[in-house]
Amino acid sequence: MQRVELTEDLSFSRIIHGLWRLSEWNMTNEEVLELIEECLKAGITTFDHADIYGNYTCEKMFGDALALKPELREQMELVTKCGIKLVSDNRPDHRVKSYDTSKEHILASVNQSLTNFQTDYIDVLLIHRPDPYMNPAEVAEAFTQLKNEGKVRHFGVSNFKRSQYKMLQSYLDFPLVTNQIELSAYQLENFEDGTLDLCQEERIAPMAWSPLAGGEIFKSEDEKTIKLRSKLEEIAIEVGAQGIDEVLYAWVLSHPAHIMPIVGSGKMSRIESAIRALNLTLSRDQWFDILQVAMEREIA
Amino acid sequence: MQRVELTEDLSFSRIIHGLWRLSEWNMTNEEVLELIEECLKAGITTFDHADIYGNYTCEKMFGDALALKPELREQMELVTKCGIKLVSDNRPDHRVKSYDTSKEHILASVNQSLTNFQTDYIDVLLIHRPDPYMNPAEVAEAFTQLKNEGKVRHFGVSNFKRSQYKMLQSYLDFPLVTNQIELSAYQLENFEDGTLDLCQEERIAPMAWSPLAGGEIFKSEDEKTIKLRSKLEEIAIEVGAQGIDEVLYAWVLSHPAHIMPIVGSGKMSRIESAIRALNLTLSRDQWFDILQVAMEREIA
Amino acid sequence: MQRVELTEDLSFSRIIHGLWRLSEWNMTNEEVLELIEECLKAGITTFDHADIYGNYTCEKMFGDALALKPELREQMELVTKCGIKLVSDNRPDHRVKSYDTSKEHILASVNQSLTNFQTDYIDVLLIHRPDPYMNPAEVAEAFTQLKNEGKVRHFGVSNFKRSQYKMLQSYLDFPLVTNQIELSAYQLENFEDGTLDLCQEERIAPMAWSPLAGGEIFKSEDEKTIKLRSKLEEIAIEVGAQGIDEVLYAWVLSHPAHIMPIVGSGKMSRIESAIRALNLTLSRDQWFDILQVAMEREIA
Repeated sequence: MQRVELTEDLSFSRIIHGLWRLSEWNMTNEEVLELIEECLKAGITTFDHADIYGNYTCEKMFGDALALKPELREQMELVTKCGIKLVSDNRPDHRVKSYDTSKEHILASVNQSLTNFQTDYIDVLLIHRPDPYMNPAEVAEAFTQLKNEGKVRHFGVSNFKRSQYKMLQSYLDFPLVTNQIELSAYQLENFEDGTLDLCQEERIAPMAWSPLAGGEIFKSEDEKTIKLRSKLEEIAIEVGAQGIDEVLYAWVLSHPAHIMPIVGSGKMSRIESAIRALNLTLSRDQWFDILQVAMEREIA
Repeated sequence: MQRVELTEDLSFSRIIHGLWRLSEWNMTNEEVLELIEECLKAGITTFDHADIYGNYTCEKMFGDALALKPELREQMELVTKCGIKLVSDNRPDHRVKSYDTSKEHILASVNQSLTNFQTDYIDVLLIHRPDPYMNPAEVAEAFTQLKNEGKVRHFGVSNFKRSQYKMLQSYLDFPLVTNQIELSAYQLENFEDGTLDLCQEERIAPMAWSPLAGGEIFKSEDEKTIKLRSKLEEIAIEVGAQGIDEVLYAWVLSHPAHIMPIVGSGKMSRIESAIRALNLTLSRDQWFDILQVAMEREIA
Repeated sequence: MQRVELTEDLSFSRIIHGLWRLSEWNMTNEEVLELIEECLKAGITTFDHADIYGNYTCEKMFGDALALKPELREQMELVTKCGIKLVSDNRPDHRVKSYDTSKEHILASVNQSLTNFQTDYIDVLLIHRPDPYMNPAEVAEAFTQLKNEGKVRHFGVSNFKRSQYKMLQSYLDFPLVTNQIELSAYQLENFEDGTLDLCQEERIAPMAWSPLAGGEIFKSEDEKTIKLRSKLEEIAIEVGAQGIDEVLYAWVLSHPAHIMPIVGSGKMSRIESAIRALNLTLSRDQWFDILQVAMEREIA
């Protein structure tokens, strides 16, 4: 498995496993542990979480599985996020959906994540969404304290646009290490609005959420999707892929920005599609062919 | 009254009085003087003008009042603007509405402002609008000359977006000290397009024009406004505000960017709403509750 | 003829001749040579090409003419571009329209351009379009190699927005020297989206393509165009221009950003309109008058 160096002392596996829907997979702790071990065996060492996943339950489910074999902790990188407050039975004090990047909330959220994971450090903590009510000096204080306490090794963001990224970075004494953004042939916004340019300018490898566009591409019957699916099927045959999911993974993997797709599946068979995509070579022609069908127009 | 430090040698009162409509208030010089004195007594020491306000008449009306008690000059910060040319009976040589940020125009405009105010210095001069025909080197020359002559202490801009701000700043040997922008729960553009992020990145406190959205919120009967008004009324009760104007002021005042709202009223009773808002505490929940009604959608 | 200094050792003529449509002019080598000599005589020393112009034929047509009098090479600045791959009979291996900014493609394209021009150096090479699949480190490698080999003196871009420009520049050890963008009173996008601000911030003089908006302004009968044409005719009379094309040239020439319009005509009579425009003085009022008709609204 390829690895991507984020800092001198931190690298991620090129394919990242995402636990967004862990609570929907109806797995026992033993089954989760098995999934973790299979990922690790396949070279996927980076696991992506957020406090809110599964209505605030996924971190703990993962942690309970990990507790069965705590020595695995050192073989993985744990990524989690904070900053969104959901209205939830599991957080009865939340009255309104909101973002919270106050120092108090960040520190409390990390402490809860550490408890959930039954670990004493997070590898990378991300601010989940740009908070229009952000006090960047407070975020910097929280990050610095967490770093000094050894609770979080490195920090990043998610869904940040250029102005938000540059602003927060300007308050930090250390570089943000990633920006987790939506990237797929189906959802081109971050290609088009300068966010991917920013990642390249800042020398950060982005994590890609929804690299398969949440599955829409397999189901939707609108004209654009039908055309894109047909193009992906055509190219799957050309490159010897077993399915269009592989081609979609290859489309982000082949991009020079070292995009790290997050695979959010509980089935190794699905995860293996992403791993196989590492061995696919899309030509520039094929990449642009897909792009232009996805854009629904020719490039200029 | 809270104060906001803009530079080592300049601070503004957190609430700023705006003289935009002074010419509509039908006040005698004595009445204007009384308003000024009441503001000062309440701690509002910063007064916001522009050459063009009142069709080029407001600066002089203020200056005539100030002349009745010239010792007040030292107790206040005078902000004015230049760069818009209106077609006006008071400027018969203006043939076309235009922006003018030429050195010649900036210098002449400041000299006229000094005459109007009967003072020998402006505390902060703002370029009123980004000029698509700007020669930034000329602006820098004009600013430097005005600073050296002691006619203007500091410089800022108004309604500048990121690219315009970064561009002009790159030509100046000293930092711009503020960006006066439209900010209210009713008009979210500068929250959404990165302009407020820029202010935080540049460590400048923005001045907010139309913090009450020009009064639309009190009158309009469209669906969005009705819902927003209703939400503001609900929160007014929760926080013990006397009216929704206080909540609107509190909404910008509670934001971490040190937003300084401009209150453009000739009535102390209205101005006091803004002052009272300084003592209101909006919770993050309340802030986001208002935001989401104003956006007409949930945050992501 | 005014000249614009791009670097210490490179200047362009303020008016640039564009060879975009050379292949449509049905000229013999001798006629092309005559055109070149007339341009040079008039002070137009900068010639703008791209590998793809005329379906990959224009560079060679120019080079064949230049070969009749090779000593002219030293009297001119040759600009060309690479990075677009057209599907073309002249490039049978191109299967899909795409961008290609790989090192391999850039080097090969420059070698072909040198062959076409029968010269041993390009003055300025531009990346024709921002490539969403760009590996900026590879572009930097290619540029550095071309510079070291003496094949290309300086580098620039075309049609780059802020994020793309800042990103690529961050990988280069030397400054990009220009951004060739669409600029005219008819097409205001780059005035409005911060691209011209970027040029001023970066101290680069932009080259303007389609300064006459591709001729639309002379022909189109839609309401906006009729109004704009009428305004241009009015101002042509005011300033003593022989036609509205002169006013359109003057509109970009009078802007403080040192815009260098590209004149893409094979007829000296047309080229002379641009040269005459250098002597026209548009007032700020006239400039804004045109702008506001073009925007179809008043400035704020």
